[in-house]
Formats: sequence, C-alpha cells, structure tokens
Amino acid sequence: MNTITIFAPATVANVSCGFDAMGFALETLGDKMTFTKTASKKITISKIEGAELPFDTDKNVAGVVAQAMLKDSNAAFGVNIEIYKNFKPGSGLGSSAASASGTAFAINQFLNNKYTNLELVKFAMLGEIAACGSAIADNVAAAIYGGFILVRSYEPLDIISIPTPKELMVTAIHPQIEVKTADARKVIPSKITLKTAIAQWANVGGLISGLHTENYDLIANSLVDYVAEPARKHLIPYFDEVKESSLKSGALGVGISGSGPTIFALSKGIETANKVAEAMQKTYSETGIKYEIHVSKINETGSKIITKWNIIV
Amino acid sequence: MNTITIFAPATVANVSCGFDAMGFALETLGDKMTFTKTASKKITISKIEGAELPFDTDKNVAGVVAQAMLKDSNAAFGVNIEIYKNFKPGSGLGSSAASASGTAFAINQFLNNKYTNLELVKFAMLGEIAACGSAIADNVAAAIYGGFILVRSYEPLDIISIPTPKELMVTAIHPQIEVKTADARKVIPSKITLKTAIAQWANVGGLISGLHTENYDLIANSLVDYVAEPARKHLIPYFDEVKESSLKSGALGVGISGSGPTIFALSKGIETANKVAEAMQKTYSETGIKYEIHVSKINETGSKIITKWNIIV
Repeated sequence: MNTITIFAPATVANVSCGFDAMGFALETLGDKMTFTKTASKKITISKIEGAELPFDTDKNVAGVVAQAMLKDSNAAFGVNIEIYKNFKPGSGLGSSAASASGTAFAINQFLNNKYTNLELVKFAMLGEIAACGSAIADNVAAAIYGGFILVRSYEPLDIISIPTPKELMVTAIHPQIEVKTADARKVIPSKITLKTAIAQWANVGGLISGLHTENYDLIANSLVDYVAEPARKHLIPYFDEVKESSLKSGALGVGISGSGPTIFALSKGIETANKVAEAMQKTYSETGIKYEIHVSKINETGSKIITKWNIIV
Repeated sequence: MNTITIFAPATVANVSCGFDAMGFALETLGDKMTFTKTASKKITISKIEGAELPFDTDKNVAGVVAQAMLKDSNAAFGVNIEIYKNFKPGSGLGSSAASASGTAFAINQFLNNKYTNLELVKFAMLGEIAACGSAIADNVAAAIYGGFILVRSYEPLDIISIPTPKELMVTAIHPQIEVKTADARKVIPSKITLKTAIAQWANVGGLISGLHTENYDLIANSLVDYVAEPARKHLIPYFDEVKESSLKSGALGVGISGSGPTIFALSKGIETANKVAEAMQKTYSETGIKYEIHVSKINETGSKIITKWNIIV
C-alpha cells in the first residue's frame, strides 16, 4: 500500500448539554485526503484545495500530526499529503479536527494499525493545539471513533463510544460568517451556579441514556444547554429563529455545533431532517446572509479508507 | 384487600458524580409498614417502632403523603398506618423517603393503582418537604421505581430508570453520628467552576453509560464527585480512611450516601462487597464510634408488598 485516500468526517462537538464532553461525526460531510508513502522520511504537503491553509508542515494541522506519528514510531518512510477540504475552517464543524484525525487514521494504516484509537486521538489532539491552542478531544475523538463519543476524562484521557440510534439524522446550517473559537470561548462564564450545573448534568445523563435505549423522546427532552448556548447564541444571527422553526418542523433538539456559527439539529428519520432543512433554509433565505445546509446520517465508523493502491516506483 | 404490609427500601442518593440527580435502592435494608383500610375517611398512625417520629398525621411524613393521596383521589375510606423503622432517620439512607414512598405505594394499592410511578413520586415529595423542607426527588424516586434512577428534570418532573448491572452490590457503613441535612447543605458551594462542572457531567455520562452496558471499569472510573464530597467529607469522621481501605479491598467506587454520614461503596460481586464490609469494619472498629454496616444487592423493584389479607370486620 503506497497510496491511500481517506474520508475524514465533519463533527459536531458539545451536543447541547454535553459541553466540552460530547461529540458525534457526520456521514455525508467531510474532507478527502490522499497520503502517499515516500522514501524521504519527511512529511510534505503537495496540495490543498478548498481552503487557505499553510503548506508548512510545522504549521499545518495534518503536518503536525503526521510528523509526531512518524517520529514516535521511528518510521523508515515519509509521507506526502494532499488535502481536499469540503467544508470551511471556522464553521464549528471540526475542520481542523477532520484534518488531524484523518491524518492520524491514515498514517496508522501505513504503520499497520500500530496505534489504538485512543492513541490516535492523542496524536490528533496535537493538531488541535496547533490549530487553536487547546488540546481539545471532542471533535477529534468523534472523527476517529465515529458515532457519538463522550470524553469522560482528560487525565487520563478516556473516550467512551455511545451507541447511535438507527433513525437519528442531522441537519446543519452553516451561516457564512466568522465566529472565532477564541471569541466564542470568551463569552463562556468561568463559573456557573450549582443549580445550573445539576440541571446540565441531569440532561447529560438523560441524553446518554436516550442514546443507549433509542428513546427519541428522552433524547429530545435532554438536548438542552443551560451553559454555552445562552452565552453564545448572540454571536449567531437568527439563532432563535432557526431553533424555533426547526423544532416546529419536528427536530428533536437544536443547538450550536462546537463554538459555532453552525447550528445543528437532530431528528428522527430522513423526512423530518429534510423538513428541518427546509425550515432552516426559509429562515435564512430572508436574512441576506449566505449559508450552506447539510443533511446527514450519523457516521458510525469515523475516518475511513475510500481507495488504496500500490504503485511500484 | 383490607390490610397490606409493604417493604420500603433504603436508598442512596447522589451516587458520587450524580449529585442531586441520581439515586438507587437497597434490597436488604428498608422499613416495614402496615396499612389497614378503615371506614373513618381519616388517616391514623397507631404504631411507630424503631425511631422517635411524630404520631401527628400533619407532621409525620407517612401521614402527610397518605392525606394528600386520599384527598386527591376523593377516597371513600381512611387508612391506619403502622411504621416499623429498620434504619434510623439522619443516616443519609433516605429514611423519610422510605416512609413517604412506602406510603405512596401502599395507598396506591388501595386505590387499584390509580396513580403512575411518576405521580407517586410527586406525592412522596410532599413527604420530603415535610421532613426536610425541600421537594427532593432522588431518594423517593429510587424507593418507588427501584434500581438506579436519574431525575432528569424537576419542571416538569422526569424520572428515568437506568438498568442495574447484575453483579453490582452495595456496602454501606452508617457511623452513628448526626449530620443534619441542613448543615450538609450549607457546606455545598452555590457556584462551581465550569471546569469542575464539565468534569462532573462527563462522569455522569460515563456512569450512565457504564450502567447501561454493565461496564464495571467504566462505572468505577466514573464514580468520582468533584462537588459535594470534597465539601462534605470533613463532616464524616474517617471518610478518607474508609474510602481508601474500601478501594484497596476492590470496591469500584466509594462516596457519601445522600448528605451522609453513611458512606456507600459499590462492588462487583458479593465476595468483594463482603471484603469491603470487613475493611470498613476494621477502619471503624478502631475509632470508638458506633457504626452499622449493610451489604446489599440493588433493589430493582422499589417498594413492594410483603403480605396482604382481607379481614371481614
């Protein structure tokens, strides 16, 4: 295997009540990346399409992750990377996480799956540090494990896979405005009342239980965020209107994807997910703000191989 | 059915990370209560054994709950109550909750199960108000539903049953000292850092997932309380020593039951639960403080009928 092309999914972090602890991956939105083994023992990036990102491997998320893995494994080869971004950085859908996780997954293929998924998350987190300065695990864990994940603990890092109810669908609207992660972080309070915290963790418990039991009512009731959403929704134009119209169209719940500006909705079944997309479209079409809407199943496998082939050089 | 004798289980509220949101019921510790239908349309309490509690039905938890139910259902009968307490008020094992829940369950039998479990919890919460001034649901919900419960929301009240792993056992030590609920509440901070809150709800998610999947390692890792335990453990003599020796003996996790002073441990299997009991006993036997130790399965059915019979008067 000399060359491998992989799919690295977009991801929704936080999932309303699960702020900084939960995430899930999308099936139909994500980046393509092609990795080719080279003899040079170096990482190179020969192509980046779909976004303005650095080719410098010390600054590019994929480059940072690939270098760390080749160094750690003492690999006798190098890798050239081509990046085809299908969704933009700054969307709140884990753009840097897709690059980092896709790279960790692909390099691990070249290393005969030397590393566990948990170890891949740790490598991918180095990419998140390069991208935004924080070792955040929720997006990268979702992109590597697939499905719903819970970051139960950071020290030691513990990622829990939570089952995905069969009919669960995602609708996401990405308003084409910029919300910087740093700005979105600033509005989050450093302290919250215990009463708020209890209400939030009761919903985390409800959401996790609802996912385990495919109880869509429980999932719907639990998709509430008392912490980040009230602080951040003002950064996202027409958030309340999108939420209201989506819920009216049958969405189980609506929240901010990561630090925004993407708004995600979860629905039971494709029909409802499409109705929610129409509602989002209708709300945003009147605003003059450009937007993209995605309807997707939950990705249950994480990053995956699209094609691989051997080229005799 | 004129007379019914029921078992009302002791309960552990909070369950470490699930502060004010989780609880479970014990199989082998609880009160007995006998209820007899009368023609008077009044509630009377003819016997209380095992604790000093008021016979005045406006002040006794059982009396308060029974009166509310007979009034709400416009019942054409009265009830006499006998209370046989097998564990003491102020233990942190839900003594008032057992009386309240047992009463709600028993009166519902006389009413041909007119009320749902959720409605019974609401009636039993009136007893908790009478006992401690707060409408707390975690103990009474566990005593009515049995097994593990999650109080997902108070408004509206939403109780979620969480499955009980088959081999899960409880060991509980009740040091015979008094910790008043009001005092235990005072030491709890009204605000916590978001970082602490996130760590706590990540563990709630882990505990709920571990219970669903019978993953004992995950349960063990998740049984951590960053909020109440650090504040309250100083009210319980030798808490750290009991915790350390219990964990060394194989307990999955150790925490404060409700607002204490009872310390509970969860273990996999009866052998480990007994070893934990020995460790607790050894630790406390050297302190000069009196104590009781209970080893129990998780009660999966909640309050239950022991005997019922018809007496033709």
